[in-house]
Amino acid sequence: RFGYFGMDKLEAFKLLLCNVSGCLTDGQVYMSAGGEQMVSVNTRDETGIRMLQKEGVEVILICSSEAPISSGLAEKLSQRTGCELLQGMELGQVEALMKRKKLTWNEVAYLGNDEIDVDCLNLAGLSGVPRDAPVVALNATKYACRDAAGRGAVREFAEHILLLLKKAKSKMEQDRIHRNLF
Amino acid sequence: RFGYFGMDKLEAFKLLLCNVSGCLTDGQVYMSAGGEQMVSVNTRDETGIRMLQKEGVEVILICSSEAPISSGLAEKLSQRTGCELLQGMELGQVEALMKRKKLTWNEVAYLGNDEIDVDCLNLAGLSGVPRDAPVVALNATKYACRDAAGRGAVREFAEHILLLLKKAKSKMEQDRIHRNLF
Amino acid sequence: RFGYFGMDKLEAFKLLLCNVSGCLTDGQVYMSAGGEQMVSVNTRDETGIRMLQKEGVEVILICSSEAPISSGLAEKLSQRTGCELLQGMELGQVEALMKRKKLTWNEVAYLGNDEIDVDCLNLAGLSGVPRDAPVVALNATKYACRDAAGRGAVREFAEHILLLLKKAKSKMEQDRIHRNLF
Amino acid sequence: RFGYFGMDKLEAFKLLLCNVSGCLTDGQVYMSAGGEQMVSVNTRDETGIRMLQKEGVEVILICSSEAPISSGLAEKLSQRTGCELLQGMELGQVEALMKRKKLTWNEVAYLGNDEIDVDCLNLAGLSGVPRDAPVVALNATKYACRDAAGRGAVREFAEHILLLLKKAKSKMEQDRIHRNLF
Repeated sequence: RFGYFGMDKLEAFKLLLCNVSGCLTDGQVYMSAGGEQMVSVNTRDETGIRMLQKEGVEVILICSSEAPISSGLAEKLSQRTGCELLQGMELGQVEALMKRKKLTWNEVAYLGNDEIDVDCLNLAGLSGVPRDAPVVALNATKYACRDAAGRGAVREFAEHILLLLKKAKSKMEQDRIHRNLF
Repeated sequence: RFGYFGMDKLEAFKLLLCNVSGCLTDGQVYMSAGGEQMVSVNTRDETGIRMLQKEGVEVILICSSEAPISSGLAEKLSQRTGCELLQGMELGQVEALMKRKKLTWNEVAYLGNDEIDVDCLNLAGLSGVPRDAPVVALNATKYACRDAAGRGAVREFAEHILLLLKKAKSKMEQDRIHRNLF
Repeated sequence: RFGYFGMDKLEAFKLLLCNVSGCLTDGQVYMSAGGEQMVSVNTRDETGIRMLQKEGVEVILICSSEAPISSGLAEKLSQRTGCELLQGMELGQVEALMKRKKLTWNEVAYLGNDEIDVDCLNLAGLSGVPRDAPVVALNATKYACRDAAGRGAVREFAEHILLLLKKAKSKMEQDRIHRNLF
Repeated sequence: RFGYFGMDKLEAFKLLLCNVSGCLTDGQVYMSAGGEQMVSVNTRDETGIRMLQKEGVEVILICSSEAPISSGLAEKLSQRTGCELLQGMELGQVEALMKRKKLTWNEVAYLGNDEIDVDCLNLAGLSGVPRDAPVVALNATKYACRDAAGRGAVREFAEHILLLLKKAKSKMEQDRIHRNLF
C-alpha cells in the first residue's frame, strides 16, 4: 500500500499559494507623478493559472503587508485571474486560511520569491521560486523555475504541479490494479 | 510540371493569421488600479506586417475568447496595423473565416504561441511560434522563430514567408522557361 | 598635409541624425484602449546626446512618415532632449535639411535601424545601428553597436563619434607640429 | 587594537547614497503625449532598502540636477521607500549633506551609474555600480554589481553592505575578547 499512501501525502495538491509581487508580476511597479500605479502580468502565466483551476487545484494570490502594490491593483489581478486574494502573508494568516480550507501543508504548493516567503517555502508540500529569486529564497525552495518572475514562472510551476498530480494518479491506478491482482 | 504544382499548393500564402497576445505583443498586459489596460507592440513587427501587405499577403489578427486583452485595445491594434480583427480563435471560427476568404489551409500561414493555437499550427501550410513559446506549441509548429514574442517574431516570420514566396516564384519562372525550351 | 585634409573630410562630424523609433526608443509603443500612447527612453542615451551637444555636435531626431509614434510624443522627446525634430525621413527631406545646414554627408553621422534607413546608412560619413537591428540594416551600416536600441545604443554611438573627433583633432595637431618643424 | 580601528574607519557605513535614475530605476523613463511620466522600481530593490533601514543604515535617494525624472515622481519614490530625497548631485551638495549628518566619506556607501557619479564613487568608503553601467563608472567603482539597474542592483549592494557590517562587528567582537584575555 506504499504508493497509495505516498501519493495521498505528497502529491495531492489542492491549493497553489502564489505571491503576487515578483512571482505573478516581474516585481516591477510603474509609477507616475500623478500617483497612478501599474504592474504587468504575462498571458502565459494566466494560462498556467487556468490550467490548474481546470484540474481542480485552487489558486490564491497573496500580497505582502509590506504592500509594494496598492490593494486596488491587487483586487484587479484577483478579478482578472479569478483567484481569491489574501492580503498579508504572515505565517499565521496563511495557516488560518489553510485551516478554513481544511488543508494540510502537504496539500499546498507555494510559489514565493524572497525572505518573507522562506517559512512557507520550507513548510509547503511543494515550493517554487522564479529563476531570478534572491539566494535566501533559492536555498529554501524545493523547485527552482527556469523561467523568470512575470515571464512564465507561474506557468512552469503550474505545469510541474500538474505533472506530479498525473504521476501520482497513474501510480495510484497501478497500485489498485496490483491490489486486485494479488 | 512538378515545381509549378508544388509551388501552387505549398507556398502561395495569401493570409497570415497572427495571435495578438504573445505573438504581436510580448504577452505582458499592464494594468492600473483605475482599470486602464496597456500592451506594447514593436516597430520592427509592424514593419513586418506592412512588408507582407505590400506583397499582397493579407494579415488578420486573432484574439483569444479567453480574452487577455480588452476588445477596445484589440480594436486599436487592428486600426494601427491596418489588419482585420477576428475575435475568438476556435478552429470553427478560423475555418469559417477561411471559407469566407475562399482559402485552403495550404494558403494560410499561422503564428501562434500556446495550447490554444495547436490545431491551427498543425493544419496551416506554414506555422510559426516565437522563441519563448511553451513546449506544447514548439512541438506543433513548423518554424520556430529566433526572435521573441513582441520583439521581432512577427517580423522574422514575415521575412520567412516572403522568402518562401520568392523562391516559389523563381522556381515557377524556371519551370516555365524549361517548358518553353523542350 | 595628408592627415589634415583626411581629418577635415572624414571625421569632422557636425551633426548626428538619429531615428527615434528603434534607436532612441527600444521600438516598443505602449497603447491603452483609451488611445494614450507611451514610449520610453533611457537616461544613458540622453546623457550621450548631451555629451555630443557639449562638444558642438548637433543632434536631430527623425521620425518616420510611416509614423509609429504620434507627433505629440515626438515633440515631447524633442523638447526633453533639446534636439530639433525632422518629421519624415525620405532621402530628399534629409538632404534638404543638410543643404539648409550647409553640411555634406561626410560631416553627418547617422543612427538608424531598418530598411527605411538604408540609403542614409550608406551615404553618411559614419553610420550605426543598434545590436538588435534587422539584417538589412546591419549590412548597410559602418558601425554595429554592442548595445541594444533604447538601452544604450545612442550613448555608445555618441562615445564612438567623440572618440573619432578626438583622434582627428590629435592627428591634426601632430601634423601642425610636423609642418612647423620642417 | 588594529581590527577595531580598522573597522571603525572602514566598515561602519551609516548612510547609503543612491542615484535614482539608472540605479533604483532601470534608467527608462516612460512618456506619453499628454506629458505623463512613469518610471518603474523593483520589489527586490525596495526590500534591499528596508533591509538596510532595519539595520540602522540610512538610505538617501539623489536626483541629478540634469533631471531626467520630474520632481513629483522623485517625491513619490521618496515617500514609497521612506527615504529622504536630495535634489542635485554636485559634490558640494553631497558634502553639505554629509556635514549636516556629521558623517565622513568612510561612513558612506554610494551607488551610482555614470560620469556624474565618478567623484562620489571615488571618495565613498564603499561604492557600487549596476552591471550595465558605462565604462567611466565601472572604472571608478569599488564594487561592480552582478545585477542590472532596476533589476536587483540596489538589493545586491545592500546585501554586500550588510555582509561587510557583519564581518566588521564579528571582528570587533573577537578583538574585544582578545583584549580581555591578555
